[in-house]
Amino acid sequence: MEITIIKIGGNIIDDAQALPQFLDLFSRYHGKKILVHGGGILATQMAKQLGVPTQMHQGRRITSPEMLKIAAMVYAGWSNKQIVAGLQQRGCPAIGLSGADANLIPARKRPVTDIDYGEVGDISPDEVNTGIISMFLFKELVPVVCSITHDQKGHLLNTNADTIASTLAVALAPFYHTRLVYCFEQKGVLSDPQQADSVIPLITRKTYLKLKEEGVVSGGMIPKLDTAYQALEQGVKEVYIKHALHLNDKLESLLILSA
Amino acid sequence: MEITIIKIGGNIIDDAQALPQFLDLFSRYHGKKILVHGGGILATQMAKQLGVPTQMHQGRRITSPEMLKIAAMVYAGWSNKQIVAGLQQRGCPAIGLSGADANLIPARKRPVTDIDYGEVGDISPDEVNTGIISMFLFKELVPVVCSITHDQKGHLLNTNADTIASTLAVALAPFYHTRLVYCFEQKGVLSDPQQADSVIPLITRKTYLKLKEEGVVSGGMIPKLDTAYQALEQGVKEVYIKHALHLNDKLESLLILSA
Repeated sequence: MEITIIKIGGNIIDDAQALPQFLDLFSRYHGKKILVHGGGILATQMAKQLGVPTQMHQGRRITSPEMLKIAAMVYAGWSNKQIVAGLQQRGCPAIGLSGADANLIPARKRPVTDIDYGEVGDISPDEVNTGIISMFLFKELVPVVCSITHDQKGHLLNTNADTIASTLAVALAPFYHTRLVYCFEQKGVLSDPQQADSVIPLITRKTYLKLKEEGVVSGGMIPKLDTAYQALEQGVKEVYIKHALHLNDKLESLLILSA
Repeated sequence: MEITIIKIGGNIIDDAQALPQFLDLFSRYHGKKILVHGGGILATQMAKQLGVPTQMHQGRRITSPEMLKIAAMVYAGWSNKQIVAGLQQRGCPAIGLSGADANLIPARKRPVTDIDYGEVGDISPDEVNTGIISMFLFKELVPVVCSITHDQKGHLLNTNADTIASTLAVALAPFYHTRLVYCFEQKGVLSDPQQADSVIPLITRKTYLKLKEEGVVSGGMIPKLDTAYQALEQGVKEVYIKHALHLNDKLESLLILSA
């Protein structure tokens, strides 16, 4: 059986025009599916309104206890339930979940090294509660998973949504033909950042390293693609990088391991 | 089979000392169970911090669109996931849900009469998705339901947590021997408000009307007890009013229909 894990970011969730368009596409997306979302833009806004400083390190949020509370409120509360209500409206039987619910995704607080990321949870595919996910899928429910996990000791933790998506995909790979789709604001990985249609249709591990070297791929795309290749190495069958509002179109980058 | 629906309010959830004590008691509570919670104190605080005015009418919140967003963030986000993580820590397999998740509790926006309650949802036991609740219970999960519902048209709504608890109890009454427990900050309904131990152990419909007439029962207890008696009339077997931190003790008021 096939399953698709689709990840969207704050640029879709926190955009009043783009979100309904995406939910139309997602609800029509064929087969078993899971939606994973962050929601960083609204969290950053909320932090500003509440006077909580936002700290980032290499594109990843440093999560103070005050920021964790905001992340839980925004991701698991407003964004998750807005998405669920929007999918239910479209006849898509969504159920919103954090990693704490039904112990879906246990995490360990990230150890402090050079950087203290704060209330951030590292996760592992071995620990994902695949039984409960399969039960939801069997009952025709569509899990909508936000980027909040827990440490099984009563503490919520913030976990990067890209990492949650790839970890779920790897965890489900032994049981399903697993497809991972990273949606973002481009039609795929571009050979020329100035040309929106210069999508590289097929990226091998080798061409990826070259693209990285040449600086064609940079910034937040690097951890995304690194994570994607790790997922492929661990049994995920296909990884696509595409525009959230072109979910069902063919313009996209497909990643493959071999040359 | 028996089931107990336990409702707690903001005075427990938003109290850093009381919440862990309650979660200890709840996780040890015997048999199938559902926890229903509001979380009004933190929502009111958050509204103040964000400069959103709080309006009340006869103990019920008037919900502006801005206040709905805060309610969804606080109830479905922070409070719900804190409770779930705390129960998971205690080995209680909790799953946090709003009425939108898996279409658990569809609602209709309350019609405007003398008062416009705003983004408030009225609910009915006939519409509760009892199949999905039974599935969760069968899978040994413990639903933790917050007081957010949806209109099936993509909008979240705010619904009183007492009403959610009684509506779930009535909806489940045909399938289970159903017990409803309203937890609050007294050991039960008191015959003398100055004496914390003057709990009335058994309240009949007739004595309730008398207590109301005499002013022994007043304020927020009146809608709570009215709702409780409606639940008894609609098949719920037992309704208890008790202190949240005495969940497993015997000091409590048991409501009964007949004299």
